[in-house]
Amino acid sequence: MPAFFEVTYRVSQPPGGIEAFAEAILLEQTFETPDEVVRRYPSLTARRGRVLSIEADGADHLVRLALPDDVASENPAQFLNAAFGNASLHRGVRFEDVEVTPAIEQMLGGPRFGVEGVRDHIGVHDRPLTCSAIKPVGLSLEELVTLCRRLAIGGIDIIKDDHYLADQARAPFRERLKACLDVTREVAARDGRTVWFVPNVTGTPDEMLRAIDSIHEEGAPAIMMAPYLSGLPTFHWLTGRAEVPVFAHPSHSSSATIAPGLVWGKLPRLFGADASIFANSGGRFALGIDEGRMIAAMVSTPIGKIRRCFSVPAGGLSLDSVADVIRFYGNDTILLVGGSLLRSNDLASATRQFVDSVASAALLVK
Amino acid sequence: MPAFFEVTYRVSQPPGGIEAFAEAILLEQTFETPDEVVRRYPSLTARRGRVLSIEADGADHLVRLALPDDVASENPAQFLNAAFGNASLHRGVRFEDVEVTPAIEQMLGGPRFGVEGVRDHIGVHDRPLTCSAIKPVGLSLEELVTLCRRLAIGGIDIIKDDHYLADQARAPFRERLKACLDVTREVAARDGRTVWFVPNVTGTPDEMLRAIDSIHEEGAPAIMMAPYLSGLPTFHWLTGRAEVPVFAHPSHSSSATIAPGLVWGKLPRLFGADASIFANSGGRFALGIDEGRMIAAMVSTPIGKIRRCFSVPAGGLSLDSVADVIRFYGNDTILLVGGSLLRSNDLASATRQFVDSVASAALLVK
Repeated sequence: MPAFFEVTYRVSQPPGGIEAFAEAILLEQTFETPDEVVRRYPSLTARRGRVLSIEADGADHLVRLALPDDVASENPAQFLNAAFGNASLHRGVRFEDVEVTPAIEQMLGGPRFGVEGVRDHIGVHDRPLTCSAIKPVGLSLEELVTLCRRLAIGGIDIIKDDHYLADQARAPFRERLKACLDVTREVAARDGRTVWFVPNVTGTPDEMLRAIDSIHEEGAPAIMMAPYLSGLPTFHWLTGRAEVPVFAHPSHSSSATIAPGLVWGKLPRLFGADASIFANSGGRFALGIDEGRMIAAMVSTPIGKIRRCFSVPAGGLSLDSVADVIRFYGNDTILLVGGSLLRSNDLASATRQFVDSVASAALLVK
Repeated sequence: MPAFFEVTYRVSQPPGGIEAFAEAILLEQTFETPDEVVRRYPSLTARRGRVLSIEADGADHLVRLALPDDVASENPAQFLNAAFGNASLHRGVRFEDVEVTPAIEQMLGGPRFGVEGVRDHIGVHDRPLTCSAIKPVGLSLEELVTLCRRLAIGGIDIIKDDHYLADQARAPFRERLKACLDVTREVAARDGRTVWFVPNVTGTPDEMLRAIDSIHEEGAPAIMMAPYLSGLPTFHWLTGRAEVPVFAHPSHSSSATIAPGLVWGKLPRLFGADASIFANSGGRFALGIDEGRMIAAMVSTPIGKIRRCFSVPAGGLSLDSVADVIRFYGNDTILLVGGSLLRSNDLASATRQFVDSVASAALLVK
């Protein structure tokens, strides 16, 4: 007899009424076979889920289902399949939330380091962390390393690859990794603090595994992967092999079919992200305030023994908005500022200003 | 100097006017860095894409962009990143189409067998192929094998696993594979025709690779994978390792952010699917006629040397609709009928009726 996990779908304009549609979606996510066929097999009764509730929410309905966790707890791909498989093919159905069972929790595992682990490694416990990126793709190795150096000198905690940087001829992966690690270590030693360089890992599963091997050999402190490019199950497989914290990049994802709190909060966290990058509300991606709040809640809400994940708001963050962003997301946040810093003619000074404003705002927020 | 590939996005309600938004999305998909920063580096000029056209389409706009193919042709994940990376994070932007360059075409490769290869293997050239599934998950090995036997006796060409079937204790993967292959071979030998059993491959990349090894050892004729569960890049990596045709299952996908013709047609085809399963228009998934037409076009439209892919309409196909479906999708179609057959108290006879109706309809359509 399987345990049951819970999913919530937001349903708009259901064909044939919400009650019948809820039952149809339940069948889709359990047996995907006409009910009259299912009833011929008494052994299937134990796996029959149920509609827990249907609640109106504006013009939509929130439908909560209980689904058997035996398929979902097999592996990360089956979890997605069981939680939001063929239901995704129905128009007007958005995956809003999932409450996992212990079996699923154990299978997925969540972040290996989480907020506390990352803080311990960086040695900063009392303020949000600061982050920027070297970019754009197309720059030479020297140009990218120069940006990395200036950001480090400016006092930033974390410098990451842009997500378009892979193994381009002008700045090959291994050389970029070595050079940026050298620069960040040099500045860190001089300033007596920690500076992270976070390389981007992309490609096919075997290429990503080889990149992670290189990263271990070179002693990089963390990595970045994009779960919605690689697929969440491959992301999960690789987080299990990486011996360092993992940043999730949101490329190729959307909140159209999976709610913001889930797609950029709970799912990357369950699948092993220690920090989840997402488009900040008010930035150039036009995410709403409520959606930002959902993400912030989902990265830190208690889920069994699953560690908390850093929220990493990004995408058009300006220096003026630092205090607001910290007030909104709290201290367990990594502020990722790219363009606003790179715009400056004195990158190191602009970075220093950003770092100082985060430190001051953190004092105000506490 | 990179070549340029083309993407088309459908944009609804752009903030700040469509011209400015098109330029903003272009920047997002190329440098993702403020233009004033990009202009400081003359070396980047060669990688600057451009807005090719903006065309009103009802209340929306279709925006065509030329993007440098050097990032996109690196690997399958970078292709998705370059074609629809951070643009996916913007509200009201749907990925409509992509025209690849020879470098991308060569990197992705498309189906290894395609329509002609699958037809050669099955030995049927003059009619659509017939397909059904053994399900639901939760049945015992014996119960599933019984369904497989009846479908085979009924004269069907292809019997596939349900996508929820993985390695459950009641019907373990390897045992199910062996038993269903035995049954289909036995009936095929008796009837002097070909009957395929197509096992479902799911899990983490290494688990899927091991499953494919088992499949090669047992001599299965084809496999099924779900590219939107595994991630398209992992799907691509595995299609490169499978020595048999690959069916793509659409679980965990949606046409909300990627157009139907792309998400169930051109993308699975480019990434190596020999047959792409999708929800038929008019079935229980409420896909429209135009959308079905887009999928049918995208699996067979000429793309360099990329082979054609079978369209596999499914999801609530009834026996009454067989002729209409064949008229709509043409003869290079695999008709997947699940529930409508399983409903019958005499599965072999119902299957025979389905198979006969496909044969008759194919004669009418020609």
